[in-house]
Amino acid sequence: MRMSKLYLPTLREVPSEAEIPSHQLLLRAGMMRKLVSGVYSYLPLGYRVIRKIEQIVREEMDAAGSQELLMSAIQPKELWEASGRWDNFGPEMFKLKDRNEREFCLGPTHEEYFTNLIKDEVKSYKQLPLNLYQIQTKYRDEKRPRFGLIRSREFIMKDAYSYDKDLEGLEESYKIMWEAYEKVFNRLKIYYKVVQGDTGAMGGKVSHEFMAMSEVGEGLVAYCDSCDYAATDEKAAVVYNIDGQDIEELDCEKVYTPNARTIEDIAAFFNRGEEGFAKTLIYNAKDEIAVVVLPGNRELNEVKLCNYLGIAEHELELADEETVKKVTGAEVGFAGPIGLKEEVKLLVDERITKMKNFIVGANETDYHIKNVNYGRDFKGEVVEDLLLIEKGDICPRCGEKLKMDRGIEVGNIFQLGTKYSESLDATYLDENGKEKPFVMGSYGIGVSRSMSAIVEQYHDDNGIIWPLVVAPYHVIVTVVNIKNEDQMNLGEKIYSYLEDRGLEALIDDRNERAGVKFKDRDLIGIPIRITVGKRAGENIVEYSLRSSDDKIEIDVDEIMDRIEEEFEKEGLKIN
Amino acid sequence: MRMSKLYLPTLREVPSEAEIPSHQLLLRAGMMRKLVSGVYSYLPLGYRVIRKIEQIVREEMDAAGSQELLMSAIQPKELWEASGRWDNFGPEMFKLKDRNEREFCLGPTHEEYFTNLIKDEVKSYKQLPLNLYQIQTKYRDEKRPRFGLIRSREFIMKDAYSYDKDLEGLEESYKIMWEAYEKVFNRLKIYYKVVQGDTGAMGGKVSHEFMAMSEVGEGLVAYCDSCDYAATDEKAAVVYNIDGQDIEELDCEKVYTPNARTIEDIAAFFNRGEEGFAKTLIYNAKDEIAVVVLPGNRELNEVKLCNYLGIAEHELELADEETVKKVTGAEVGFAGPIGLKEEVKLLVDERITKMKNFIVGANETDYHIKNVNYGRDFKGEVVEDLLLIEKGDICPRCGEKLKMDRGIEVGNIFQLGTKYSESLDATYLDENGKEKPFVMGSYGIGVSRSMSAIVEQYHDDNGIIWPLVVAPYHVIVTVVNIKNEDQMNLGEKIYSYLEDRGLEALIDDRNERAGVKFKDRDLIGIPIRITVGKRAGENIVEYSLRSSDDKIEIDVDEIMDRIEEEFEKEGLKIN
Repeated sequence: MRMSKLYLPTLREVPSEAEIPSHQLLLRAGMMRKLVSGVYSYLPLGYRVIRKIEQIVREEMDAAGSQELLMSAIQPKELWEASGRWDNFGPEMFKLKDRNEREFCLGPTHEEYFTNLIKDEVKSYKQLPLNLYQIQTKYRDEKRPRFGLIRSREFIMKDAYSYDKDLEGLEESYKIMWEAYEKVFNRLKIYYKVVQGDTGAMGGKVSHEFMAMSEVGEGLVAYCDSCDYAATDEKAAVVYNIDGQDIEELDCEKVYTPNARTIEDIAAFFNRGEEGFAKTLIYNAKDEIAVVVLPGNRELNEVKLCNYLGIAEHELELADEETVKKVTGAEVGFAGPIGLKEEVKLLVDERITKMKNFIVGANETDYHIKNVNYGRDFKGEVVEDLLLIEKGDICPRCGEKLKMDRGIEVGNIFQLGTKYSESLDATYLDENGKEKPFVMGSYGIGVSRSMSAIVEQYHDDNGIIWPLVVAPYHVIVTVVNIKNEDQMNLGEKIYSYLEDRGLEALIDDRNERAGVKFKDRDLIGIPIRITVGKRAGENIVEYSLRSSDDKIEIDVDEIMDRIEEEFEKEGLKIN
Repeated sequence: MRMSKLYLPTLREVPSEAEIPSHQLLLRAGMMRKLVSGVYSYLPLGYRVIRKIEQIVREEMDAAGSQELLMSAIQPKELWEASGRWDNFGPEMFKLKDRNEREFCLGPTHEEYFTNLIKDEVKSYKQLPLNLYQIQTKYRDEKRPRFGLIRSREFIMKDAYSYDKDLEGLEESYKIMWEAYEKVFNRLKIYYKVVQGDTGAMGGKVSHEFMAMSEVGEGLVAYCDSCDYAATDEKAAVVYNIDGQDIEELDCEKVYTPNARTIEDIAAFFNRGEEGFAKTLIYNAKDEIAVVVLPGNRELNEVKLCNYLGIAEHELELADEETVKKVTGAEVGFAGPIGLKEEVKLLVDERITKMKNFIVGANETDYHIKNVNYGRDFKGEVVEDLLLIEKGDICPRCGEKLKMDRGIEVGNIFQLGTKYSESLDATYLDENGKEKPFVMGSYGIGVSRSMSAIVEQYHDDNGIIWPLVVAPYHVIVTVVNIKNEDQMNLGEKIYSYLEDRGLEALIDDRNERAGVKFKDRDLIGIPIRITVGKRAGENIVEYSLRSSDDKIEIDVDEIMDRIEEEFEKEGLKIN
C-alpha cells in the first residue's frame, strides 16, 4: 500500500479524552476514531489488526473443533424472559422496539440464542459434544465507557458455547477451550495470567478469566508465586484471621465523638488502629436494605455480597443519605449494628464474631460505642467471607503471601451447567432414551479489547510496537526524499519485490519531510523498517526493527534474508 | 470436515413460511435459520458461503483502490438530523435510546457517518479521490420482511463511499466502482443486468442497479435487446403516445352507472376499452391530498409521483375510504377530476391532455361523466410522466419494443453529488485554497442477499448447486457404507489427501443409509462428489458433479486431475 493513498489520519496531539496509552495511541496512529462515547470506528490500519486477531481466534477455535456461524445481533425479548435475564441484565442491555412495538435487545451475549437454536435440532446424545462460535459485534450500554476499546459499548467479541451430556463432558470441553485460549493469546503475544473468576450473573460455578497483565487494567489479580493460585479480586477468597480471642469482654460504653465520621477520624480519636473497629455499611439491595458489618481495616467485596444475596450487581447500591438517616436515626457517619431503627438484613463478616471489644457507630449523631462484642451485644447473619482481597493477604492454597497486579480481561470461560438449558427447556435424549438438559459452557474473547491490550503491552513513548503477527503491515519502506530519483526508484523496486514475495508492505512515498515520515512510522508501529536514503545509488539501505534501537546498513540483496530471519524468530511463515 | 461432527440440521419438509426456492433451500440445507421475521442466523455451511462472497467483494474493492474499515452500527440522531434523514427515512429505521436517553439508530446505511468521519481529517484536494468501504451488518425494519435473505431486517452489506473534487472525478470513481461490481458479480457467477435506477431518497441524479435476473425478483427490469437500455420499472421513462387528436370534442354527459366501480366494470358498461377512460387516484401525500389522473389502461408509478412531490415513499399512501368520501362526496369508485369537494393537489399525466372524449368518475355515487376533455372540463398540474412501464412499451432510446423481466437487486451505485457534504458541512480546499464541498458517490452490495440470488440461479428440485467459487466445501467424499472397512479406509485416505492438497473437503462418515447421504449431498449442493462404494477394494470410486447427471468410475489416482480440471474450467486456483 502506498502511504500517499492510505487513509491514515495521524494526530500529533494527544486527544484529551484518552487517559491510557492504548487509547491515545490507537487514536493518534489513525487506527480508530470515536463517534460517541464508547462507540468507535476502525480505520484501515486498525481494521487490518482486528482482522488478524479475528483470524488467529478463528484458526484456534476451528482447530479445537468449534464450528463458526453467525447469529443476528437483535434478539427478541421472549428469549431473555425465559432465562430471567431480560430484567436481570439491567441497564447495560440496549433495548429497542420494532415498527410493530415488539421488543428486542442488541445482544450483549448469546447464551439464550445459541441454546434456542440447537434445542430443536440437536436431539440425541450422539450429536454431543457440540461447540459453536461466532465472531460478532456485541452491545453493552456501559455506565462508564472508557479507555477506548477496553470498555466500549459496541465491540467485537468471539463467543462460543459448548453443549455436553454431563459435567464430565463439560469439563473436557472447558479444558479444550482453555487450551485453545492459551494458544490464541500466546500467538497474539499477549502476556497473560489465567485466574479464577466470579460466575455471578452468568450462572454456573467455575469460571476463569484470561487477564492481559497491564497497569492500566481495570481488573485486579491476586496471585501467588509459590503455587499457581490466581484469582480476580472479585473472586479471591480472603484468608484473614483474627487473633486474640482470649481477651476478656469489657462493658459497652457510649462515647461522645463529635465531628469524627470517617474511620480515620475515629481511629485518631480513640487512638486505636482501624482493626479495632467494625465498619457498618448500608446498601439498597434490590427490595431490601442490607447492613453489612466488617472489620474496620478491610474493604467490602460487593460481588461477594451480591452473590450471597443472589442479586445482580446493578441491583446493589450504597444507600443515600436519607435512607441512612432513616435506618440509623443519625447523621451519616455513625452507623452501627446496635439499635437500628428499621427492619434490615444485617450481615456480619465471620471475622467480626472473633473480634473482641471493638468500636462501632452508635446510630446516634456524634456517638460511638466501644467494647462491643458479637453475640452479646448484637446478632446478625454471619457470612463466611465478604472481604476484598488485599496485597499481602495469604494465599488460600499454599499460605504464602499473595501479590496483586492489574490486568485487562481479554477472555473468559464459564462452566454454566444447566442454567440456560433448563430455563429454555433444551434437552437431548441420552443412551437410555431419557430426556436430559444439555450441560453447557460459554467462552468469550474480546477481539477489539485484545487490540488495546496488545498496544498496552507493546508501545513506547513514540508509538505502538506491533508484534509481527498482528501488525497491519509487516514492512515499511521509507523513501527519505521522493524527489531523489535513485531513492524513489530503489524504494519502488524494493516495495514491489516485497509484495511479490507475499509480504504486506507499505511504501512511504509521501511528499513529506523525513522527520515526519520517521515519526509516523514510529507511531503506527510497523515492525520491520527499510529506509531508502543517501546510499540508494549504491543499493545500500538502512534496516531496523521498531522494537529495537539498532540500525544497520545492508545491501538490498540481504533484505529478504533479514526479514525471513525475523519471521522465523517470531515463529511465523511468509505467505 | 467430518459430517458426523458438522452442525448441519437439514430438513426434509419445506418450511411453510418459505415461498421461494432460495428461502426454502437455504433453510432445508441447514445453511440458515430464522429467529424472528426477517432476522436470520447463518449456520456453519451458510456462513462459509457468506465469507467467500465477502472475500470476493473485498478483493475487488481493494483492487479498485477502495480501503476497508469498519464503522459502528449504532449512530447518533444528530448525524441524521443534519442530513434531514432522521425523519425522512421513515419507519424502516430502527431507533433506540441509550441509558442516558440519547437517541440512536441502527445504521441502515452510512452516508452521513462516512462523511462525518472524513470531514475533519481530509482537508486538501491532494488527498482526493478517496474511496472507503466496509462489510457490515445493516438494519432496516422492513414493513414486509420476506423471501429469507432477500428482504430481511438484519443483513450483511458492503457499502462504499467515494469523495471527489468535482463531478468529473465522481464520474471516474463511479466508473471504477461499476467495473469492480461487474468483476464481483462475474466472479460470483451471478447472471445480472445493470439497469438505470431511481435515486429517490438517496439524493443525486444518476444511479444504477445490479439486478440478478430471477423470476422471484421483487424488482422489474425493462430492457431493450436492440440497444443496451435497461431500467427498473420505478425509473423507466414511459414512451406511450396518444393518437387521434383531431377528433371533435363532444358535450359532456353524466351517465347513471349503478354498481360499476372498477375500471373493468365501467369498461364493460360503456362497452369501451380501458384506454377510453381516465383513472383518478386519491393519495395522502405527506401534508396534502394528491389526486392523480392517468389513462385508464395504465398504472401509476408511485416512485415517479413521490419524486415529483419531493416526498419519501413512506409518506405516500392511498387514501382511506373516509378521505375518498370527503374528497369526492361519493362512495369509493366514482372519483373523477371534475367537481372535487376539497382543496387537493390535482396532478395530471401529460397523456391525459391529448385524450379526447374520455370517461371519468362523476364524484357522485353511481355516476360517471363521458366526453370529458382536458382544458375545457378541468385543469390541473400537468406532469410529464407518472406512468409505470409495461411490457411492450417502446424503448426510450431506440424505439424498439421493451422486454420486462424480474430481478433481485444485489448491488447499487449512486452519484450523490454534494447533498451530504453540504448538509454536513464537509469541505476541502481546492488548488486555489477555496473551500468546496466533496462530490460524493455511494455504492452498495447486498452480501447476504447475493447468497440468496445465487441459490435462485443455481438450484434444481433436489437442492442447491453451488458454483465452485462460493461453495461451502469444494468436494464431498461420500462413504456409502461406513461399516465396510475398505470403503471407510479409502474414504479417509482420499479425504486427508484432498485436505493436504489445499482443497476444502467434507467426508460423509455418518452412520446413515446411502439414500440419506445422497439426498443431503444434493441438497447442500457441494459441486464435486466422490462416492466410495462397492469397488473401494479396487481403488475405484465414482466421480460426479452436482451440476450434471453424469457419473463415471475412476481410479483414485485420477481424482486430483479431475478436480484440477474442474477448477481450471471455473477459472479458479486450488490454494
